[in-house]
Amino acid sequence: MLEAMGEFDLIARYFSRAPRRALVGVGDDCALIEPKPGTQMAISCDMLVAGRHFLDNVAPRKLGHKALAVNLSDLAACGAKPLAFTLALSLPSLDEGWLAEFSTGLMRLADAHDCELIGGDTTAGPLNLCITVFGEVQGSALLRSGARAGDDLYVSGHLGDARLALRALTGRLHLPPDLLTQTRDRLEQPEPRIALGLALRGWASAAIDLSDGLAGDLGHMLKASGVGATLEGPTLTGLLQAQSHPQWSQISPPVQALDEVLAGGDDYELAFTAPPALRDRIDQAAKSSQTPVTRIGRIDTQTGLRLIDAEGRTQPVTQLSFDHFKAG
Amino acid sequence: MLEAMGEFDLIARYFSRAPRRALVGVGDDCALIEPKPGTQMAISCDMLVAGRHFLDNVAPRKLGHKALAVNLSDLAACGAKPLAFTLALSLPSLDEGWLAEFSTGLMRLADAHDCELIGGDTTAGPLNLCITVFGEVQGSALLRSGARAGDDLYVSGHLGDARLALRALTGRLHLPPDLLTQTRDRLEQPEPRIALGLALRGWASAAIDLSDGLAGDLGHMLKASGVGATLEGPTLTGLLQAQSHPQWSQISPPVQALDEVLAGGDDYELAFTAPPALRDRIDQAAKSSQTPVTRIGRIDTQTGLRLIDAEGRTQPVTQLSFDHFKAG
Repeated sequence: MLEAMGEFDLIARYFSRAPRRALVGVGDDCALIEPKPGTQMAISCDMLVAGRHFLDNVAPRKLGHKALAVNLSDLAACGAKPLAFTLALSLPSLDEGWLAEFSTGLMRLADAHDCELIGGDTTAGPLNLCITVFGEVQGSALLRSGARAGDDLYVSGHLGDARLALRALTGRLHLPPDLLTQTRDRLEQPEPRIALGLALRGWASAAIDLSDGLAGDLGHMLKASGVGATLEGPTLTGLLQAQSHPQWSQISPPVQALDEVLAGGDDYELAFTAPPALRDRIDQAAKSSQTPVTRIGRIDTQTGLRLIDAEGRTQPVTQLSFDHFKAG
Repeated sequence: MLEAMGEFDLIARYFSRAPRRALVGVGDDCALIEPKPGTQMAISCDMLVAGRHFLDNVAPRKLGHKALAVNLSDLAACGAKPLAFTLALSLPSLDEGWLAEFSTGLMRLADAHDCELIGGDTTAGPLNLCITVFGEVQGSALLRSGARAGDDLYVSGHLGDARLALRALTGRLHLPPDLLTQTRDRLEQPEPRIALGLALRGWASAAIDLSDGLAGDLGHMLKASGVGATLEGPTLTGLLQAQSHPQWSQISPPVQALDEVLAGGDDYELAFTAPPALRDRIDQAAKSSQTPVTRIGRIDTQTGLRLIDAEGRTQPVTQLSFDHFKAG
């Protein structure tokens, strides 16, 4: 009797579990949690809309993963330990197969990070997912505003690959099959850098998660910190994983690795800063969290974002962040 | 340059304020709050979709009020003091006039309850509002599961009027103009019963907020508590404010007050229970919170919901809660 399954049954069937650290979980007017004394609560909220944040034909299991991953990435950028989340779902219809797959992807990632679903809402309407996530911060959180002139600038993982896949899937670029598979994984299955964020807390001077493209998101960090930065072009170029793929030369029309890295989007990596005296510490954090980390430049007193190219020339970076209202 | 206003400007312009009790508010990857030691955090999340939870032509200022009110109502039902909220907005277009009105209605209610906007997300897409609200609970929260056989059963305010307005506005009922104005206010401007919830905490044995209709929502409370209830029909009938309006007899087709009260929906009142020995306490809570409260029946060991009519006959209540997937 799928048609007769109402919203309360839906929550119970796919999403409710016995409360763990929550005192009260799904099923009362509110969930109740009791944060540890002396900790701060980090809270972030992301809304995903079909056709804008994900393609209509994305596999629901991957969508479940990604919807939570983008929120966990915000916790990572603050150095917070995941605690719990709420999920609000607007669904065009009650598709049991879709829900089973979606909740599998979602709950698998939630369990991997011991992040408890404590409440939510479901309604009929155009497909829309809204997750609010809660994390616990011991001591001082990582903020965007702490970068200081002279600090090293780092990023985790690879950048720009997700953007290649998105353009291929929307018909704006041709990617050879193996390269599409590899980059598509980066687009659809980002791994939030929780372990790195926790390892950096107390050491990094500032951090931000990269969701709208390196140039744009760095811009937010620099503005919040009242500083600028100079990036090393050749190092950036190396961050695009696709560039070292044997099928790289078959992309059509051809793309510039540097553009892809700077414009990016959907990377869900961390950009962060730390004084040069802490380079060993940062190496250690990268190792202990098993996360690749690359030093890509330095923070300057001069505001704005600059790039030193392979020939040693400095030029301003004019690439803009992806903006959901400006982009088509 | 309205067209060029991006999502970051939008948050800054209409919704960001200096953090008050939040350590970090709108503008970093996460907001940070530090709950008082010994308190629990109550969390609730509601998603509102155009054409389903509100009519497309609703005044944006009223929509701003209602979007937060329905969430605060969940805090009220737990006896929680409002603390903060996040707002995720999906908007079909950047309409500056709409946003100014929407944020005015939203922030006015937020300020009235000292509830701080600490974060959010905006995106382009079909109109959708998702709010997650945080409250502080001293001692034990009010839960749905505490009702015991022998307890009195109460509701706050009036019930059923919002449903009359909704049916009139969607062309299913004709209401004379004055009666439409009065009931429409109840539909569009519900006042969350925060003060009553706080006054009941520690005294009421169970509570729930009434959003989907008295019969259905009571059903959830009774199920969670493992009990049943018997309602007094004539008392219920008196809860429909429209019934004492001079234009009541001009409604067409005519409606039955009892049906309207039981089916209700969008009432945002509290239903709660307490032992008869605490009647004076409950009166006191109603007075101190300046909230009308009516005793409508009692809790029984026999499960299910029954009604005693004016002739003293007991009959089962078969009215079902409004369900967003079952209703058209």
